[in-house]
Amino acid sequence: MNIVLTLRILGALLLFLSAALLLPIPFALYYNDGSTSSFLFAAGITFVVGFLLFKGCRSQRELSLRDGFAIVSFSWLFYALFGALPFYLSGAIPSFIDASFETLSGFTTTGATILTVVENLPQSLLLWRALTHWLGGMGIIVMSLAILPMLGVGGMQLFKAEVPGPTADRLKPRIQDTAKLLWGVYVFLTAVEVVLLMLGKMSFFESLCHAFATLATGGFSSRNASVGAYNSAYIDGVITLFMFLAGVNFFLHYQALRGRLTEFWKNEEFRIYLGITVGSILLLMVMNQGSVYNSLLENLRFSSFQAVSILTTTGFGTADYEQWPVLSQYLLVAMMFIGGCAGSTAGGMKVARILLLFKHAHVQLFRLIHPRAVRLVKLGNRPVNREVMQSILGFFALYMGIFVIASFLMAAAGMDLVSAGAAVIATLGNIGPGLGSVGPTDHYGHIAPFGKGVLMFCMLLGRLELFTVLVLFFPTFWRK
Amino acid sequence: MNIVLTLRILGALLLFLSAALLLPIPFALYYNDGSTSSFLFAAGITFVVGFLLFKGCRSQRELSLRDGFAIVSFSWLFYALFGALPFYLSGAIPSFIDASFETLSGFTTTGATILTVVENLPQSLLLWRALTHWLGGMGIIVMSLAILPMLGVGGMQLFKAEVPGPTADRLKPRIQDTAKLLWGVYVFLTAVEVVLLMLGKMSFFESLCHAFATLATGGFSSRNASVGAYNSAYIDGVITLFMFLAGVNFFLHYQALRGRLTEFWKNEEFRIYLGITVGSILLLMVMNQGSVYNSLLENLRFSSFQAVSILTTTGFGTADYEQWPVLSQYLLVAMMFIGGCAGSTAGGMKVARILLLFKHAHVQLFRLIHPRAVRLVKLGNRPVNREVMQSILGFFALYMGIFVIASFLMAAAGMDLVSAGAAVIATLGNIGPGLGSVGPTDHYGHIAPFGKGVLMFCMLLGRLELFTVLVLFFPTFWRK
Repeated sequence: MNIVLTLRILGALLLFLSAALLLPIPFALYYNDGSTSSFLFAAGITFVVGFLLFKGCRSQRELSLRDGFAIVSFSWLFYALFGALPFYLSGAIPSFIDASFETLSGFTTTGATILTVVENLPQSLLLWRALTHWLGGMGIIVMSLAILPMLGVGGMQLFKAEVPGPTADRLKPRIQDTAKLLWGVYVFLTAVEVVLLMLGKMSFFESLCHAFATLATGGFSSRNASVGAYNSAYIDGVITLFMFLAGVNFFLHYQALRGRLTEFWKNEEFRIYLGITVGSILLLMVMNQGSVYNSLLENLRFSSFQAVSILTTTGFGTADYEQWPVLSQYLLVAMMFIGGCAGSTAGGMKVARILLLFKHAHVQLFRLIHPRAVRLVKLGNRPVNREVMQSILGFFALYMGIFVIASFLMAAAGMDLVSAGAAVIATLGNIGPGLGSVGPTDHYGHIAPFGKGVLMFCMLLGRLELFTVLVLFFPTFWRK
Repeated sequence: MNIVLTLRILGALLLFLSAALLLPIPFALYYNDGSTSSFLFAAGITFVVGFLLFKGCRSQRELSLRDGFAIVSFSWLFYALFGALPFYLSGAIPSFIDASFETLSGFTTTGATILTVVENLPQSLLLWRALTHWLGGMGIIVMSLAILPMLGVGGMQLFKAEVPGPTADRLKPRIQDTAKLLWGVYVFLTAVEVVLLMLGKMSFFESLCHAFATLATGGFSSRNASVGAYNSAYIDGVITLFMFLAGVNFFLHYQALRGRLTEFWKNEEFRIYLGITVGSILLLMVMNQGSVYNSLLENLRFSSFQAVSILTTTGFGTADYEQWPVLSQYLLVAMMFIGGCAGSTAGGMKVARILLLFKHAHVQLFRLIHPRAVRLVKLGNRPVNREVMQSILGFFALYMGIFVIASFLMAAAGMDLVSAGAAVIATLGNIGPGLGSVGPTDHYGHIAPFGKGVLMFCMLLGRLELFTVLVLFFPTFWRK
């Protein structure tokens, strides 16, 4: 471990955060909502700590892969703590635990809120909430397409962005190039959504908030009733489309913007993602038709919004799905485990992993019938490396194990069984709303501090593909 | 496929079943319960069908491994259909679906009943119910220690009985020898339990029924209130002990009876099984103390009974655990997924598989920190073959996939979410009682025929380690 250099990089990342903390200030001034000083203070504190770490920690030694794990995990944690300052300093969220829960939920693009009435928050804080999503989403795209594959985490090697660029041994320029290209796509899609929402008569401010939360598959809304507050089929449609796009590997978007539209169809994960989306919308419509919605168009509007919102782990709502038939609810919960595509901002286990699990099981059965035949698990047309497959299988086992243990802890924190399990998958999968006491019309504020801590850990674990965080708990990780 | 020879062997197995169907007749005559003719008819029909298949189907060709899958799967199915005849013919269970549900639940040692009041059944039919457990248990021991490993199913190769015996290429004598040795142990333990229960003032008839259901980890009781009906700490203790023993690899019992008692401790799966048992009893006691039980001894008695009953997938009850704290219930549900040791009569995923999943995940994390280190997954001191490990990982993915899909189907059959999931794991894990509408004080009679069909399929899948049944659904399985 090169702790000194790790701290230096964390310091640099805090400097970046301190700049980001200045962004809501124009809104604070424009709306005169009284939060300007909170943002200034927060940016100041973050700057000073960042500056001291950056300047104070110098090392001649190079970064090792092991440092990468520490940097990734702690950067998310640091962002949650320092990013919580505006909420806390302004008094909008008086408990620091709550404020950091909300912020981590933002940066991990989870969207689980502790707020009882969202509209009570000053506008600039609402924007900061949405901005934590958007910045978190940026971080995730680069992390999942460039950094995690390099660290060998959970089979992510499969999905790395094959961006043309300098092939020098140094990793930095390569990651920077990848980042620039993909962020360009991200910014472009965000801008398009803002324009489209404004065409639907949403204010610029609210369009910005919702576009940030959509592209990051976050789910924080500037309204307590979420997207349902606008009661507009057009807005629902735009957001459904952009949630779907946000759940796609951003490298495919990059290719598409370069004119290679067929790349979408050539990508097996995308095909399956599209299939799951369409299939689950149809299933939900069958179950909701007559029982919840009488008009087919109305059914399509609400069912497709909710299906895409849950599958992409965004968590926006236009309907209280706890009023839907039990089967519809069950389907939504099952979809929470799946999530979107690898290399998108979506959470969950990711479509590709689920697909490869099925293929692995299929190959196992095939081998029993044809013991002498050689059949490999493939993704697209390329055989999946055995190590990568083992990593994905390990990921699945860990995911389930964490789900079981964390649900037990949440039940120990006083939640009923359904709410406990739903809260865990809603945070581990970075979705937001769950069922029961954390359903779409509820919030996470009532949970005991211990429970909030468990759920924050789940958000971080899910966002960083489990492995990245868990290795830090190995004693040998910290040894020389 | 050698369908002719497969049918011949199924015929031979039916001849054996027809003999078994005569066993309850002395009880029918002694209690004069009016079921004698039903058993005679059932045995007659089974004999005729078995005889026709056995004599009519002759083949010069040898059995292939592929035939093994068909024989194993269909033998269980045939036993459920023909074994249901006494219930159906006597009119005790008027619906044939219900009768075959009860019988398959018996032979797979699940113990899920459709009966509202167990005591309404004539004694001879109660004995037949217990006997289906006991015979099923016999089948499972040999199947899991000799037949399935040979077929390469789900990593069961790890746990095969290494019984000294003829090493000829032909499999039959080897399996027969293994069977004789292990059945000797099985009969011996059953006899000891009968004697011990009778010492607790249980009648010979009821002792027999309960010993059959215990050793098979089945769970059918001759009383509606299950073992709780006797309200005896001594009987609870005896049954707890024998349930625990029934959840152990029977090869270890065989070694122990030959004087090699240390084999227990040398076996890693046994150590973990013991650890899980003790750990879960302690956890249950902590959660139940004060809230359900005030006396520590009473707490120990009921908590340990329920822990062992669920972990070994027996499903006997002395307490209505739905009255226990939510956390206790959650723990019991989690234990349902684990089950007992491989090579025992217990169901579930098996302790060894869960242990190996954890070890696999651990190795995956270890590799991230030490990319150049070579670390293999081991069981005991022996490294686990890569193919076997992949098979176990495939098993886990399939188990979870089946759980999700079957729960969805049960919800579609009209059950609430908790009951649907509990019914699936209670049958897939061959346990019996679940939660909600299939809780410890309820039964499975109220479920729609479609749902009963799904659960029967789950019982069969769980009992035959998934793979054995699923390969039959591959079109290539049936091709030459």
